[in-house]
Amino acid sequence: MVFILKNNINKDKVNQFIYDWEQQGFSTILSVGTEHTAVCLIGNTANIDIDHVVQTCDIVEYGKRITEQYKAVNRNVHSDSTIIPVGDALIGEGTFTVISGPCSVESEEQIIEVAESVKASGAKILRGGAFKPRTSPYAFQGMQADGLKLLKIAREKTGLPIISEIMNQTQIELFEDVDIVQIGARNMQNFDLLKAVGRIKKPVLLKRGLANTIEELLMSAEYIMAGGNSQVILCERGIRTFETMTRNTLDLSAVVLLKQKSHLPVVVDPSHASGIRSLVAPLAKAVLAVGADGLMVETHNNPAKALCDGAQSLDLLEFDALMKDLKKRAVLEEKAI
Amino acid sequence: MVFILKNNINKDKVNQFIYDWEQQGFSTILSVGTEHTAVCLIGNTANIDIDHVVQTCDIVEYGKRITEQYKAVNRNVHSDSTIIPVGDALIGEGTFTVISGPCSVESEEQIIEVAESVKASGAKILRGGAFKPRTSPYAFQGMQADGLKLLKIAREKTGLPIISEIMNQTQIELFEDVDIVQIGARNMQNFDLLKAVGRIKKPVLLKRGLANTIEELLMSAEYIMAGGNSQVILCERGIRTFETMTRNTLDLSAVVLLKQKSHLPVVVDPSHASGIRSLVAPLAKAVLAVGADGLMVETHNNPAKALCDGAQSLDLLEFDALMKDLKKRAVLEEKAI
Amino acid sequence: MVFILKNNINKDKVNQFIYDWEQQGFSTILSVGTEHTAVCLIGNTANIDIDHVVQTCDIVEYGKRITEQYKAVNRNVHSDSTIIPVGDALIGEGTFTVISGPCSVESEEQIIEVAESVKASGAKILRGGAFKPRTSPYAFQGMQADGLKLLKIAREKTGLPIISEIMNQTQIELFEDVDIVQIGARNMQNFDLLKAVGRIKKPVLLKRGLANTIEELLMSAEYIMAGGNSQVILCERGIRTFETMTRNTLDLSAVVLLKQKSHLPVVVDPSHASGIRSLVAPLAKAVLAVGADGLMVETHNNPAKALCDGAQSLDLLEFDALMKDLKKRAVLEEKAI
Amino acid sequence: MVFILKNNINKDKVNQFIYDWEQQGFSTILSVGTEHTAVCLIGNTANIDIDHVVQTCDIVEYGKRITEQYKAVNRNVHSDSTIIPVGDALIGEGTFTVISGPCSVESEEQIIEVAESVKASGAKILRGGAFKPRTSPYAFQGMQADGLKLLKIAREKTGLPIISEIMNQTQIELFEDVDIVQIGARNMQNFDLLKAVGRIKKPVLLKRGLANTIEELLMSAEYIMAGGNSQVILCERGIRTFETMTRNTLDLSAVVLLKQKSHLPVVVDPSHASGIRSLVAPLAKAVLAVGADGLMVETHNNPAKALCDGAQSLDLLEFDALMKDLKKRAVLEEKAI
Repeated sequence: MVFILKNNINKDKVNQFIYDWEQQGFSTILSVGTEHTAVCLIGNTANIDIDHVVQTCDIVEYGKRITEQYKAVNRNVHSDSTIIPVGDALIGEGTFTVISGPCSVESEEQIIEVAESVKASGAKILRGGAFKPRTSPYAFQGMQADGLKLLKIAREKTGLPIISEIMNQTQIELFEDVDIVQIGARNMQNFDLLKAVGRIKKPVLLKRGLANTIEELLMSAEYIMAGGNSQVILCERGIRTFETMTRNTLDLSAVVLLKQKSHLPVVVDPSHASGIRSLVAPLAKAVLAVGADGLMVETHNNPAKALCDGAQSLDLLEFDALMKDLKKRAVLEEKAI
Repeated sequence: MVFILKNNINKDKVNQFIYDWEQQGFSTILSVGTEHTAVCLIGNTANIDIDHVVQTCDIVEYGKRITEQYKAVNRNVHSDSTIIPVGDALIGEGTFTVISGPCSVESEEQIIEVAESVKASGAKILRGGAFKPRTSPYAFQGMQADGLKLLKIAREKTGLPIISEIMNQTQIELFEDVDIVQIGARNMQNFDLLKAVGRIKKPVLLKRGLANTIEELLMSAEYIMAGGNSQVILCERGIRTFETMTRNTLDLSAVVLLKQKSHLPVVVDPSHASGIRSLVAPLAKAVLAVGADGLMVETHNNPAKALCDGAQSLDLLEFDALMKDLKKRAVLEEKAI
Repeated sequence: MVFILKNNINKDKVNQFIYDWEQQGFSTILSVGTEHTAVCLIGNTANIDIDHVVQTCDIVEYGKRITEQYKAVNRNVHSDSTIIPVGDALIGEGTFTVISGPCSVESEEQIIEVAESVKASGAKILRGGAFKPRTSPYAFQGMQADGLKLLKIAREKTGLPIISEIMNQTQIELFEDVDIVQIGARNMQNFDLLKAVGRIKKPVLLKRGLANTIEELLMSAEYIMAGGNSQVILCERGIRTFETMTRNTLDLSAVVLLKQKSHLPVVVDPSHASGIRSLVAPLAKAVLAVGADGLMVETHNNPAKALCDGAQSLDLLEFDALMKDLKKRAVLEEKAI
Repeated sequence: MVFILKNNINKDKVNQFIYDWEQQGFSTILSVGTEHTAVCLIGNTANIDIDHVVQTCDIVEYGKRITEQYKAVNRNVHSDSTIIPVGDALIGEGTFTVISGPCSVESEEQIIEVAESVKASGAKILRGGAFKPRTSPYAFQGMQADGLKLLKIAREKTGLPIISEIMNQTQIELFEDVDIVQIGARNMQNFDLLKAVGRIKKPVLLKRGLANTIEELLMSAEYIMAGGNSQVILCERGIRTFETMTRNTLDLSAVVLLKQKSHLPVVVDPSHASGIRSLVAPLAKAVLAVGADGLMVETHNNPAKALCDGAQSLDLLEFDALMKDLKKRAVLEEKAI
């Protein structure tokens, strides 16, 4: 159940309102938007008479029942689109933010070359894997903490904020100086990790699990927001289906639905979704057209020699060409890129 | 195995070349493009020495082995994109053809009102279901032959070519005067129907089955082309996955792959893929951006009262707004719409 | 909505009861079981007052609302398990009927050798494909009508009833003398074919489509029963999932659910489900243990040389060993085999 | 690549053999079975001449290339079936071990009542969730450490070894005194957790992820074995498919394939697979018949009031009836239960 409060009301009255509900055993979520302030009740609200509350609490504009299990992420609770500032970028409504970089950080030369190039092409955020989740215990597992150091060097050189994937909650401190913490698809329902990133004050990019529904993605975002961190970016990256010609099946309908049901920004990763280089550019154009707030795309200075996922990485020229194309298209969408 | 022939060669020599292979027990497919002529051999080609053939047959430019089971539909055999003329429309490379109309033909007034409106908005082909495949035997099964008559009346009034779904091979004669014969998703592997439409000289729109792979779709198109009909339009319309928030999961990667692997035109139906009206317009924009050759979208003069699938139909104003938007975007794609 | 009638009531009264409802615009299904007679109404039953009907119609024992769309196949309508006699076999509750034979009929020698052998091992029905649905137009399409003739010769020699797959409704006459007509997985929603076999008086084995839900299978059975043919045997044969190590994923939970929701017999085909010979015997034991009414298993006198699907066929000795094992197990299930 | 060593060879020679390969940059896995000792090489073995090794190393019986990425879990490397002793139970070939207990530990009374009852019925191991992975942050998250304490009290009372689910690698110490550590489906690819349980000396039950292939399950087991822990029990618990009538689709073919490809024991959890109480018993019978080494089944003293997953729990009488039935069947399988 959510109560939308009247504008310009006294903070103490809001706190008293919240306190009263918590005394009755409800959990509450306070959501302060630019236009509305909402208070969401969690608990058994079946017996609450909404009309009675509206009549007796003069700070309440109106109330409504939310049947979805996700509350804090729900657009019904928080109707303004959330916009998350990261460095110079604003991720959310009105912009199309491109995140780019190699699958894995491999060396200082590599990450700096890629960072400078993608920045020149128009990327706003640098990605690079330091800890790599790999199906085989015998495969390259990433440069680990050293990889994070190299990412930070690249940030210093270029000014680009950085994003990298965290593997578990014991690494939270290691990621203190990383601009966006990425939760990978396999960790979308690692609830202890979700709780841990819920306690930090830093943007989190949450990837959809390959067998997870749109609703489960929203519930995982709810874990993070319920912990107190409202800077969550949702990321569609393909789901597992019977089709084997692509690594996964990119679900662009999910982008539209996520933006309808939630106020959080939504970005898309066509590189991991398809696993095929020649599909990345056409899918990226579709991602922009369907209404996503951003794009995450793998680039490499030498895809043929990449230690991981080279087959899906664009080289620097291909990425530059894609960015030129996307910039023309962004005009039509009335989005900054 | 495919042999690309030299340019400007004598027809008799080609026929002799084909005859020689057939005498040895091979089936052949002759593919005449604007730039190349190719002869494809079906059968056990393991022992053929390509170099020997090139050296001894002066009409052969070069030969290559095709490992895919699909031959006639293969872009390796026929590198020019196939363009299929239907009325004023050209379906294929360079255009973005929009097919629109109601899920079911319901009355003369309805089909004429919709036809005139979608034509004014820019649709090039009128769709309308006469025979409806319905999961329940107790559900409305379509107006049947009467539906086809009404479609033809709408064609007469508007000049729009018509497309409608055939249910089985005994209906071939009924569809003689229908401009494009549609094979529905459930019939994608109705091989007797595929053989039957392979014998007619009329465009066939072949929808991907909801549990069928990209390769199986190409093999079903191969059935039609192997029968002698090369006017096949492929249609992606969503596949069945674990996600239940949409009716099906639209697979836009398939569009890119189909156009890479085959020379046939590819259109997309976002209405059936999503089953949700508010998803149709954003997905349609993505369809154009990803590189499809056309769009099939359901419209209705009164979606709330549609006898079938109203929840996914655009009303006439929504369709008009979508077309205006798509026309602006088509400029960027350098496509006629 | 279904009305269960009192026992030993006058037939004329039943007919009058049915007539009255049909006059009001409802369709009806009359289901006569050994213990109960039921009348099922199809149509908008929202406004019917069940209590009023029970009070005013003295032939009605009680009534209940059926929310499922399937009526005739519903165990709520017809609580007795349907048992279908075919030759010496009774397919349904209390027996475990094994259907066996080659994927394709290939020659008189082959089909007779297999038929005699599987009969000796304990199979009750002989299967053999005459018309083969093949993904590739260039693959062996079966011996067609000649295959059916050879099956009948094998029946004459061995006394085993025969089952073979029909491809479309124009073949109905060809199958007049076939004991069970099989609808393949790809045709599960070929509604014209379902209607056609609904008009014949002969058992139909209906295979689940590889992307079809349990509910859709029941709706397809409903098509056949709505046409007047109540001799429907349901067949689980695996569904398409992301797992590629088996051809399909056998869904044994479906067997239990189908028997709970419907009164129709359920058999299972582990050969097509797995596509792997070494899985057939262990899965067959699980099929018996889970409560299915029968088994369909491919056997071949020489699997290595089979023209189709040899990799999943048992040879005659393997089949014999499996039958010996199943017979011991059937004792525990209190089922005749 | 694996080298099978001759019998009764000197340990020093084996160590020297391993040392020599490691000097050349290969990782090795030593697998000592009751009949064979094998040394498996990990690394680029393309240039190794097997014949040369056999001729020059007198301790080598023969060598073979293993193309699968999993080595330590591979039956080609270690042909004897692994049998894992837990309390009085032996999990593996020759037995059918039943693990039972509530989804969640809820109170001392509850867990003791259930433990005593399932022991009397024949269960060999007590399950009980202390940490519960829940989709919603607002749902009951388990009794946490207190739940483990209650499980240990129940163990003391009954003598039954206990199994409970670990959530992340920081909990390793908490589980020191738990007999089997369970990795849940959502954590099957939590590689840090897999590495952590690879370093302990205690049986690990590894559940298949709901979108994970059989091969990925084996690779996750490989992570644990590569860390030095060879006591891994695989658990099939259903995969996510388009079918919605059951919570997941139980994949019994996977049991047969896992036992063919790996030497590890395989158990099955039909409760989580189906999510429906009335399916548990028939599926459990199928699990035994298909050749699994054990069963994990949820029981509750009062399913209607269970805090979690009551709909799929058997009550104590139902569980007792199931065990009586399974004991009769186990005789046929020549398995101790």
